[in-house]
Amino acid sequence: MAGSLVDGYASHHDLVLKTFRLLIADLCQQFGGGHPGHVTHFYEDWGKANFSRGAIGMAAIGVALWRYIMRYAPHSPDYFNRDRFVLSNGHACLFQYTFLHLVGYKDMTFEQLKSYHSSREDALCPGHPEIEHEGIEVTTGPLGQGVANAVGLAMATKNLASTYNRPGYDVVSNHTWCMVGDACLQEGVALEAISLAGHWRLNNLIIMYDNNQVTCDGSVDLTNTEDINAKMRACGWDVIAVEDGCHDIEGLVKALSQAREAKDRPTFINVRTVIGLGSKVAGQAAAHGAAFGSPEVADMKRNDGFNPEESFVIGDAVREFFADLPARGEALVQGWQDLVQKYAAEYPELGAEFQQRMRGELPADWKDLIPSTFPVTPTASRASSGLVFNPIAQSINSFMVGTADLSPSVNMIWKGKVDFQHPELRTTCGINGNYSGRYIHYGVREHAMCAISNGLAAFAPNTFVPVTSSFFMFYLYAAPAVRMGALQHLQVIHAATHDSIGMGEDGPTHQPVELAALYRAMPNLLYIRPGDSEETAGAWIAALEAKKTSTIISTSRHPLPQLKQTRRDGVLRGAYVLQECESPATVTLIGVGAELSFALEVARHLQEKKGITVRVVSFPCQRLFEQQSIEYQRSVLQRHPRIPAVVIEPYAPNGWERYADAGISVRRFGQSLPGKAAYHYFGFEVSGMSEKVAGYLRRIEKGEVLRGEFVDL
Amino acid sequence: MAGSLVDGYASHHDLVLKTFRLLIADLCQQFGGGHPGHVTHFYEDWGKANFSRGAIGMAAIGVALWRYIMRYAPHSPDYFNRDRFVLSNGHACLFQYTFLHLVGYKDMTFEQLKSYHSSREDALCPGHPEIEHEGIEVTTGPLGQGVANAVGLAMATKNLASTYNRPGYDVVSNHTWCMVGDACLQEGVALEAISLAGHWRLNNLIIMYDNNQVTCDGSVDLTNTEDINAKMRACGWDVIAVEDGCHDIEGLVKALSQAREAKDRPTFINVRTVIGLGSKVAGQAAAHGAAFGSPEVADMKRNDGFNPEESFVIGDAVREFFADLPARGEALVQGWQDLVQKYAAEYPELGAEFQQRMRGELPADWKDLIPSTFPVTPTASRASSGLVFNPIAQSINSFMVGTADLSPSVNMIWKGKVDFQHPELRTTCGINGNYSGRYIHYGVREHAMCAISNGLAAFAPNTFVPVTSSFFMFYLYAAPAVRMGALQHLQVIHAATHDSIGMGEDGPTHQPVELAALYRAMPNLLYIRPGDSEETAGAWIAALEAKKTSTIISTSRHPLPQLKQTRRDGVLRGAYVLQECESPATVTLIGVGAELSFALEVARHLQEKKGITVRVVSFPCQRLFEQQSIEYQRSVLQRHPRIPAVVIEPYAPNGWERYADAGISVRRFGQSLPGKAAYHYFGFEVSGMSEKVAGYLRRIEKGEVLRGEFVDL
Repeated sequence: MAGSLVDGYASHHDLVLKTFRLLIADLCQQFGGGHPGHVTHFYEDWGKANFSRGAIGMAAIGVALWRYIMRYAPHSPDYFNRDRFVLSNGHACLFQYTFLHLVGYKDMTFEQLKSYHSSREDALCPGHPEIEHEGIEVTTGPLGQGVANAVGLAMATKNLASTYNRPGYDVVSNHTWCMVGDACLQEGVALEAISLAGHWRLNNLIIMYDNNQVTCDGSVDLTNTEDINAKMRACGWDVIAVEDGCHDIEGLVKALSQAREAKDRPTFINVRTVIGLGSKVAGQAAAHGAAFGSPEVADMKRNDGFNPEESFVIGDAVREFFADLPARGEALVQGWQDLVQKYAAEYPELGAEFQQRMRGELPADWKDLIPSTFPVTPTASRASSGLVFNPIAQSINSFMVGTADLSPSVNMIWKGKVDFQHPELRTTCGINGNYSGRYIHYGVREHAMCAISNGLAAFAPNTFVPVTSSFFMFYLYAAPAVRMGALQHLQVIHAATHDSIGMGEDGPTHQPVELAALYRAMPNLLYIRPGDSEETAGAWIAALEAKKTSTIISTSRHPLPQLKQTRRDGVLRGAYVLQECESPATVTLIGVGAELSFALEVARHLQEKKGITVRVVSFPCQRLFEQQSIEYQRSVLQRHPRIPAVVIEPYAPNGWERYADAGISVRRFGQSLPGKAAYHYFGFEVSGMSEKVAGYLRRIEKGEVLRGEFVDL
Repeated sequence: MAGSLVDGYASHHDLVLKTFRLLIADLCQQFGGGHPGHVTHFYEDWGKANFSRGAIGMAAIGVALWRYIMRYAPHSPDYFNRDRFVLSNGHACLFQYTFLHLVGYKDMTFEQLKSYHSSREDALCPGHPEIEHEGIEVTTGPLGQGVANAVGLAMATKNLASTYNRPGYDVVSNHTWCMVGDACLQEGVALEAISLAGHWRLNNLIIMYDNNQVTCDGSVDLTNTEDINAKMRACGWDVIAVEDGCHDIEGLVKALSQAREAKDRPTFINVRTVIGLGSKVAGQAAAHGAAFGSPEVADMKRNDGFNPEESFVIGDAVREFFADLPARGEALVQGWQDLVQKYAAEYPELGAEFQQRMRGELPADWKDLIPSTFPVTPTASRASSGLVFNPIAQSINSFMVGTADLSPSVNMIWKGKVDFQHPELRTTCGINGNYSGRYIHYGVREHAMCAISNGLAAFAPNTFVPVTSSFFMFYLYAAPAVRMGALQHLQVIHAATHDSIGMGEDGPTHQPVELAALYRAMPNLLYIRPGDSEETAGAWIAALEAKKTSTIISTSRHPLPQLKQTRRDGVLRGAYVLQECESPATVTLIGVGAELSFALEVARHLQEKKGITVRVVSFPCQRLFEQQSIEYQRSVLQRHPRIPAVVIEPYAPNGWERYADAGISVRRFGQSLPGKAAYHYFGFEVSGMSEKVAGYLRRIEKGEVLRGEFVDL
């Protein structure tokens, strides 16, 4: 039982807690002291002091977790079967950094810890935890994301365990521990994820709620008077309350141990803490404005029996308290490695696949699974996505594919797919599935879908390649999570359908006229609009080869003609010449995605009806194109010395000004009309576009278009 | 009691329900029939059939609402004190359109109703309800938004009532009725709003849950097994269950009446319905794939005793059933107008203000409240926002100002501000406020904050001007709601602080490098980055004058120098010449927002150290600039015939290519460093930028820069 866990250590608890709290106070005071005064100084200190006070209040939870509960290896931070810890309230990062230092992570030296919030460019203690650093499982900061990430991490464990574990060989068996503050329980993305975790009965997931009843604005009561425990129970969670979360390490260990043994539900541990324990404003929302200052920290030290003249003190007894953790970790790793070795011997095929997954590799022949040719009949590119990707998803266990309640629209269901579900749902409500299932019904929860997918991807590099799917417009709901995936270099693939105004009668709320501008600007993200099945193959290849990058594959609802000139390898270069003209060209038309065929049709019209010579470039992805050499870029666009380029895309033109001199675009919100009528309404019929291009060329001839001036046609 | 309400009508219920359901079936079948077959035909019909089946299941709820419960006036659709109805499950729009027709809204003719999903460009029946049309309170479609809008509408009532009602004069007393499906209860934005509505005890808000247990992917159990009633209770709502929501109009009327009389909480009515009642696949998730077809609709008609050969039948008895509603509505309007007249006589000052609010006007002298000068000391533009706007918010009741738990950072608190809170919170948890309060603590719920603000703004045109505030980065969380505000032409002002990498050590999760690209592309939205206090005054004036447009005012965390050249009227034109040079200029530097002073410093450096002549343009808002004449644009930029323009902004450059030839920008995610260090890290120190510009000019001279090629410096 829990009692035995703390035997031999309990006498040190008081000293360890005091040391930790004073360390945090010193770290923060150092930061506050280095901050030049200005008009908003008061407010900023306030925030930082508050965050640090949060870390102080959480001290006992940290001791319970890192000393007694979590299974991890400080000297093997990537140990595959380690417990995952997520600090969803990422602003309290000093909490995590300090424990990483105390328990022996090698990179987190005392010097590094002290560099928190400094100007040091190689610091390991950024303002929020970052996945690049030892002991950090996911980057957090934007609130609520961590909760959803934790759900994804717990799903990863369930899926791997169900797929690979065999009797006597629990090669994957870790738990996920997620720390949250009040804010994370207010954010919608967390609430969505909480619902799902309850539905999936993820008994390996534990949320620890640092219930200090204080937020930036003051008391939580200002904005929250709900019964959180009842709410969590209604969502299918077990709830455990810990009354004295600031001191009662034994009680915390008991609660956490109980949570780890949970049979059928995730666990929510409501830990009552006091913000800034030991400081003069402990637990007082009213005193929020007060920052730490030297006198206050000195008082705290005196009250705790420490020398107020000394800072950054970690006594030998405290070092000793944590000293055996690296060795304990290495023993864990060794035991697990032995287990995996025996397992691989007994189940060679499974073992080989498991090890390939751990290395983050796909089977060498994955590309052969993509059809080399496609039906010649017009095909919606969302259907092309299915043709290209479903054979891969069917064959390779790395892929977990989900949808925000749009299965019939996104075409991501492969033959024989099995749902990721708790197996007992078959009995209780006739839903088929199990934890080895890799098709995920997220419900109408786009944001959680993408944030959970980040968690799946973060479990270990490329062990999972999560795929999400929804209408492109609703990736605006999910944008904060898509961003976090790109920022963390996670390979997550978003299959977005119904792009362009061509999606039709659902109208302006569903027509994503401005969203591409966001995703084309977002770093480390490929936004790809393929023009037909062949280009869709290229889009998926680009996405699957981008092992450190997220991708959005943006497809049409409506059928697109299969073009004979398209090339999948062209997509990999972002843009390529689709059609040269034999005589010197007068203009280059840039076609994109669902409207690529328009460019070809306008070119033909211009040539046949007006005798204007036209080149056509297919431009599915700006990010891939900008990665090409300047020579390649110039050879494709040929704007120099004199061929103007006109882009055709029914989106806001923002950003195309880099590659084109004029654009036929949509600069207002859409219109509720069937797809064809919508194209007509916005001037995307061939003869009209042809007229616009011809008129533009005449204006150039007349000298009406000035240097560098982008023209909206 | 409720029983009496339906007396004299109940005998018609069966016929009315059947007529309604068959009408929906006819309308959908017409649409389905007009839909050309293609590879995904099956799926699309499926969706539409499913949505229409939803409308069919909701028939009795509609009868209860429009016949018995709601107070509205079909012939005076803008009647100020009308009940508001929000169809959050907007895809079921036929439900609303059909009732609008039946109860006598003039624009919604039978012809118009039949044009649902047609190519008619002046249709009043778009794919989702749109605010521009009679009887539609908010545009819905993106799921969950409507719930938050409804919360805002209910708050508007509470605030107006608390501000203007006097004993015997309940000039504002309406209710807000919000219809939701399963999806709206899954979306995070709705869950955030539900928490807040419970906290605020909005007893004038009623959510009606069309609990048909079916979503696009199949049974709700696929993704949802929570206890929704318990969850709503935990959030502070009353819950009423209606078992037979397809037939039991009397039971529904009773439940809705009870909800209207709720004392202290919002009400959640869980109405069990059967999707597609009367059709062959009624209530069967398994039969989802089946679309309506002629034989099925004919069968439905036969079963209901209708002629299967006839379509679009609304018999006289059904017309009669709804016939008195316009007159009843006009009587309501008349009674209310009389009341307001007497009220204005008894309370002339209050009455005048109330009427001014109803006209959507601000006091004529609002601009005088803005300081004409500012302190000369460096001032963070977020502080400038407070200096400019807080006097306005203090004086004018139109403004409801909220924050997502960042009061200390956003500077939006005015002297004597009162919180919007239920007055009893003072007793229960010491929180001061009441319903006439206009400062709103939203908690860490950015998305709900903005969606609720849309509801406030939608109550009546410009009666409220809601203001939201948070860090700019977290307007990505809120983006779907910001979009819906812009789409609906709502004047909502978003005070976004901590823009640019200059916000510093919170790091890449908080540094909004790509977000401006989205908001600059979003139609009907002003994204304004003011450079100092004077420009911040211009930004607020632009926002306050834009009565049909949403605005984001994007300000800095850190102090900015007060520039002597800035002009508030320049901001209103989007861009203006900040500094000409006397001799012919070699280059134009474009400065923006927090980095505007950098442009001036680089200009000075170039001139003094390198003898390069430089013009400087301040460019706070692309959208306002593009609204200027081409002559003005050219006079500001002067890129013709030969002065290249270089923009300086630590954001992704996407879109600046339209106005500049080169850019000093940030093309990756940010870095966790204090603001000054972050600027240094990304090359934004004066000498380095100066060197880049000079180098660029040398490259132009050498002919290395080709026509139309944007150069990243």
